[in-house]
Amino acid sequence: MKLRSWGGLAVAAVVILTLIVLATRGTTTGQSVPRELQELIQARGLTPDQARAALQTYVPPGKYDDYLMFSSGGQSGQVLVFGLPSMRLLRVIGVFTPEPWQGYGFSKESRAVLGEGEAPEDVLTWGDTHHPAISETNGDYDGQFLFINDKANARVAVIDLRDFATKQIVRNPNAASNHGTVVSPNTDYVLEATQYAAPFPFRYAPVASYNDSFRGLATFWKFDRARGRIDRSKSFQIELPPYWQDLADFGKLESDGWVFMNSFNTERATGGTLDKQPPIEIGASARDMDYLHIINWKKAAELVAAGKARTVNGIRVLSLADAVTNGVLYFAPQPKSPHGNDVAPRGDYIVVGGKLDPNVTIYSFKMIQDAIRAKAFAGKDPYGVPILAFDRVVAAQVKVGLGPLHTMFDDKGNGYTSIFLDSAVTKWSLGEPYHRGDAAWKVVDKVSVQYNIGHLSAVTGDTIKPGGKYLVALNKWSVDQFKNIGPLFPQNLQLIDISGEKMRLLSSTPVGLAEPHLAQIIPMDRVKAWTTYPAAGTNPLTMKVDPQAIKAGQARIERRGTTVEVWMTAMRSHFTPDRIRVKKGDTVILHITNIERAKDAIHGFAIDRYNVNLSLEPGKYETVTFRATKVGTFPFYCTEFCSALHLEMVGYLEVTP
Amino acid sequence: MKLRSWGGLAVAAVVILTLIVLATRGTTTGQSVPRELQELIQARGLTPDQARAALQTYVPPGKYDDYLMFSSGGQSGQVLVFGLPSMRLLRVIGVFTPEPWQGYGFSKESRAVLGEGEAPEDVLTWGDTHHPAISETNGDYDGQFLFINDKANARVAVIDLRDFATKQIVRNPNAASNHGTVVSPNTDYVLEATQYAAPFPFRYAPVASYNDSFRGLATFWKFDRARGRIDRSKSFQIELPPYWQDLADFGKLESDGWVFMNSFNTERATGGTLDKQPPIEIGASARDMDYLHIINWKKAAELVAAGKARTVNGIRVLSLADAVTNGVLYFAPQPKSPHGNDVAPRGDYIVVGGKLDPNVTIYSFKMIQDAIRAKAFAGKDPYGVPILAFDRVVAAQVKVGLGPLHTMFDDKGNGYTSIFLDSAVTKWSLGEPYHRGDAAWKVVDKVSVQYNIGHLSAVTGDTIKPGGKYLVALNKWSVDQFKNIGPLFPQNLQLIDISGEKMRLLSSTPVGLAEPHLAQIIPMDRVKAWTTYPAAGTNPLTMKVDPQAIKAGQARIERRGTTVEVWMTAMRSHFTPDRIRVKKGDTVILHITNIERAKDAIHGFAIDRYNVNLSLEPGKYETVTFRATKVGTFPFYCTEFCSALHLEMVGYLEVTP
Repeated sequence: MKLRSWGGLAVAAVVILTLIVLATRGTTTGQSVPRELQELIQARGLTPDQARAALQTYVPPGKYDDYLMFSSGGQSGQVLVFGLPSMRLLRVIGVFTPEPWQGYGFSKESRAVLGEGEAPEDVLTWGDTHHPAISETNGDYDGQFLFINDKANARVAVIDLRDFATKQIVRNPNAASNHGTVVSPNTDYVLEATQYAAPFPFRYAPVASYNDSFRGLATFWKFDRARGRIDRSKSFQIELPPYWQDLADFGKLESDGWVFMNSFNTERATGGTLDKQPPIEIGASARDMDYLHIINWKKAAELVAAGKARTVNGIRVLSLADAVTNGVLYFAPQPKSPHGNDVAPRGDYIVVGGKLDPNVTIYSFKMIQDAIRAKAFAGKDPYGVPILAFDRVVAAQVKVGLGPLHTMFDDKGNGYTSIFLDSAVTKWSLGEPYHRGDAAWKVVDKVSVQYNIGHLSAVTGDTIKPGGKYLVALNKWSVDQFKNIGPLFPQNLQLIDISGEKMRLLSSTPVGLAEPHLAQIIPMDRVKAWTTYPAAGTNPLTMKVDPQAIKAGQARIERRGTTVEVWMTAMRSHFTPDRIRVKKGDTVILHITNIERAKDAIHGFAIDRYNVNLSLEPGKYETVTFRATKVGTFPFYCTEFCSALHLEMVGYLEVTP
Repeated sequence: MKLRSWGGLAVAAVVILTLIVLATRGTTTGQSVPRELQELIQARGLTPDQARAALQTYVPPGKYDDYLMFSSGGQSGQVLVFGLPSMRLLRVIGVFTPEPWQGYGFSKESRAVLGEGEAPEDVLTWGDTHHPAISETNGDYDGQFLFINDKANARVAVIDLRDFATKQIVRNPNAASNHGTVVSPNTDYVLEATQYAAPFPFRYAPVASYNDSFRGLATFWKFDRARGRIDRSKSFQIELPPYWQDLADFGKLESDGWVFMNSFNTERATGGTLDKQPPIEIGASARDMDYLHIINWKKAAELVAAGKARTVNGIRVLSLADAVTNGVLYFAPQPKSPHGNDVAPRGDYIVVGGKLDPNVTIYSFKMIQDAIRAKAFAGKDPYGVPILAFDRVVAAQVKVGLGPLHTMFDDKGNGYTSIFLDSAVTKWSLGEPYHRGDAAWKVVDKVSVQYNIGHLSAVTGDTIKPGGKYLVALNKWSVDQFKNIGPLFPQNLQLIDISGEKMRLLSSTPVGLAEPHLAQIIPMDRVKAWTTYPAAGTNPLTMKVDPQAIKAGQARIERRGTTVEVWMTAMRSHFTPDRIRVKKGDTVILHITNIERAKDAIHGFAIDRYNVNLSLEPGKYETVTFRATKVGTFPFYCTEFCSALHLEMVGYLEVTP
């Protein structure tokens, strides 16, 4: 019996274990997908983290990304639009450089934007975009407009996010270059900070007269939201010492009305390498401190409105002396060669990265106000600007690593600082009221990036409501990160998951068409773009139906003297007219209306050998004017694959001798 | 004993099952990763196929893609370089459009390429790129050069894949537009087929004289591989009837020496929409058959070499009459409005897609040769070209779907045809010797794509050694596939795994900067690009050290009359000289050498407000010349983030009144 019961137990055990095995097998069957995936993961040599990143960033065909990232396109002069988390490039927006896919800079309408009303020989054909700024309402992105600067030529562009097209470029008449570009919490103003000082008013002045003749400028471009344009007549500038103002950020909530701007080369080094003088890189790094610029812009606006300004080259300027006298401008010492200047979500702290200092330095807005009231000055700069005492305005310093630059924020009271020399992102905690006691001002995590990160961008990470979730490291060097395809290396944008305690590097995206600087990330649904122009014949410049737009059946050709004017329609898959005859020397004006209303019924229009090229989205009207200088019979054709008979969408331009 | 042995068996079973359970648990522990992944897959709503695609296409940070895809950039005028399987955009190569990130079209060297020696007013600033062609050796991609056409202006560009830069643009003096661009199996010739017929020799001729005055052309540009340049003097053209020649493919292996080219609008419709005539799309679709052009190009080359050609605008032309008389040109009927023309890997078949016919039609090269020998003609076209009898040259027709266009091949004897109207890719089997009996000429699989596919591209899929593995569908319309970002929709490139029996759609990639047409895919390792220029001072045009390049310490400024010449060095992080003084009206010539040798030590050079902008990769030498028309003191600076002190890499240009 003993044996028997032993055997019975064993039998029971067999039954139970068999059931377990079967159950496990059942589970295994249910897990057939992961097992197959496991094999694939092994075959591709992915680590568990990489496999997770793959699944996290993949957006299947037909599904949409969650976020849009507007990135500077650097020297390309354009804006790049990425989808996140896939990091796919959804759009390149033509801004400062002609872009033929969009017909940008080719139509009369877009050439008016690109040319800014300058004489043809002065029209610039590139820009160096650095800092995009999405329009804000109450301190948060509203997705209506995008602004971006051109560092090389001191210009700012306005992009309408209904059609993702550039509508205006304004050139700063008093500056030669710019850098920081930010919007006020309700987009009343777009601030443009100069980068390299230039003679003011702009003219020739020898570099030897630098201290006296050169100045920096803070330009407050007034934005007319209803018109979607910057209004030069209501804009103003503040004269600044000839330091190299750099990045700026508007105060918000408790610091609303103020703006903060860092500067470097307060040494006012001007080099002289051919004469064996130290290069500027040495001279400009001599001092331990530069100056944080603290500007009461609302007071400046009041002073300008009250007439306390002189007009220089068509723009009102508040003088440095008046800015100082009226409490518009203060300085605070900033550790060595600062290059980041970011206001925390509640507007209470200003975070500065000094790129030759291992700390971020956090200024308290309240302490700044107290110090101003208490006149807690440590002296004045050579231009008479009062310098607030460092220890009276600094709330904390956090040791984040070598070469800290820029800081963005998450929804849990943390800052994320890009560390150029360490090639890393450091996550650290803000102090009260975000974190208290020991939890405050602490490094929480650090992740390596590849390599030499410049800016970084987090989801709505510079607004009053940071979204957390993702951060993008905009790395400058890629070195060994991509298979070599020539000496001009792509940049490397890396997506990082910041939703947890630890940061997780998800993916690398090469950018081989531009050097992105700053980017801003907005939830996809907050941008309400058009799928077609709202009415057939819409002029993209006025956003209204153009008086010269026509309907089907109204096409015609008219000659007046040596001008031939053509009103043309485009629809799948022919142009009307499809034959145009002019004489050599005639001026030809084409008014073309895409009379289609279906989305994706996009046409293009090109004339062979005449450098004529337009993009005609559904409902769009555009004009092109040219002189018929070349004799011949030239095909014109639709450049966008519009139907099965797209290749047959052709006509001929006859230019008779 | 019976029980005991029963019990013993049970005990043994318990032990075995326990081991199994433990092993299974062990496996389960080992599968903790897949379990976590499974949760992630569910949270993100991915199907098993999508999860697999995610893991298959993800390339982790620091790892390289397996393939490079060179894609046409359509109206952008550029070439796009993608990595596969990630579909990340590694590079945009400036070709027909100035591109400031690369300084392309801004330096004297690159402007010489872009301007083609034309007068400034005739320099074109865009192109419509369609068909890239990687240089071949023995019928397979060798990864040395890339050629691409500009449809709008009848040009062909040469790109050197050592530095991924455009080195030459040749303009067709006798054509107004072009289309197909392909290379012969050893890259002796680059063939450029005209698209829209134009008066020949090019001049004004009324469209009414179309049949008499207009002609098509097949241009054989002789490529000098050692020089890396097309040699106009050794090139030739063949005059063709005024049909719209379209895509072409060189024969290879058994068909080496021949070329095949499709055509449409053999109706010679010219529209007249303003006069209520039917548009060309109707007129050009009237006939059931167009003409496959069958050209004995080696014989043509011999005839031209023997003097049987006249020189028209500097290029030798074999007349249509001579081509017919000497057996250079034959036609074969091609089903309705063909738009693809692809030679199978062994050179034995030519596959044609007639876009208004549901079949691909497969011509046998052997049958063509037999028919020519037998003079099996069904008549002549109006220009005297003999037309081979359809049933004497066609090996098979395969019903692939509505709107078949282009065909690529895999390593298992299958063709993949893009189906425009069905929005699909159809996989079908070739006949003997690839497949025999019932396995031949069969549709094997069909996969939907989103939407309206144009070209497709498979790994080395148009060479003698197709690689299988991946195929990319270059879809024209994206409609609902991406969140709307304005009326100009991105195109949609879709990656498909073709390594198995069934095709598997892996991913969608929006292209929001160009309309890609054809692409070619090459194994990554076959491209041997430079990481830096080989010697400091390399001129990218000559690929040799420029006589004007300098070494460290040799910088200088010299004035001769009203010309100021500057020899400048760039290194981290200063220019020498960093101060330049000129007078208004002076001509300024800058010779700039990046004297660095480390990879990624890339500098840029821009002068504010002067439209001067260069990219200076390690070792590169470039020149820029401008007139100092504007008075002022202008910063110049490095535009590429080269070090922690990059922002300090600045100088000033003084332009005195």
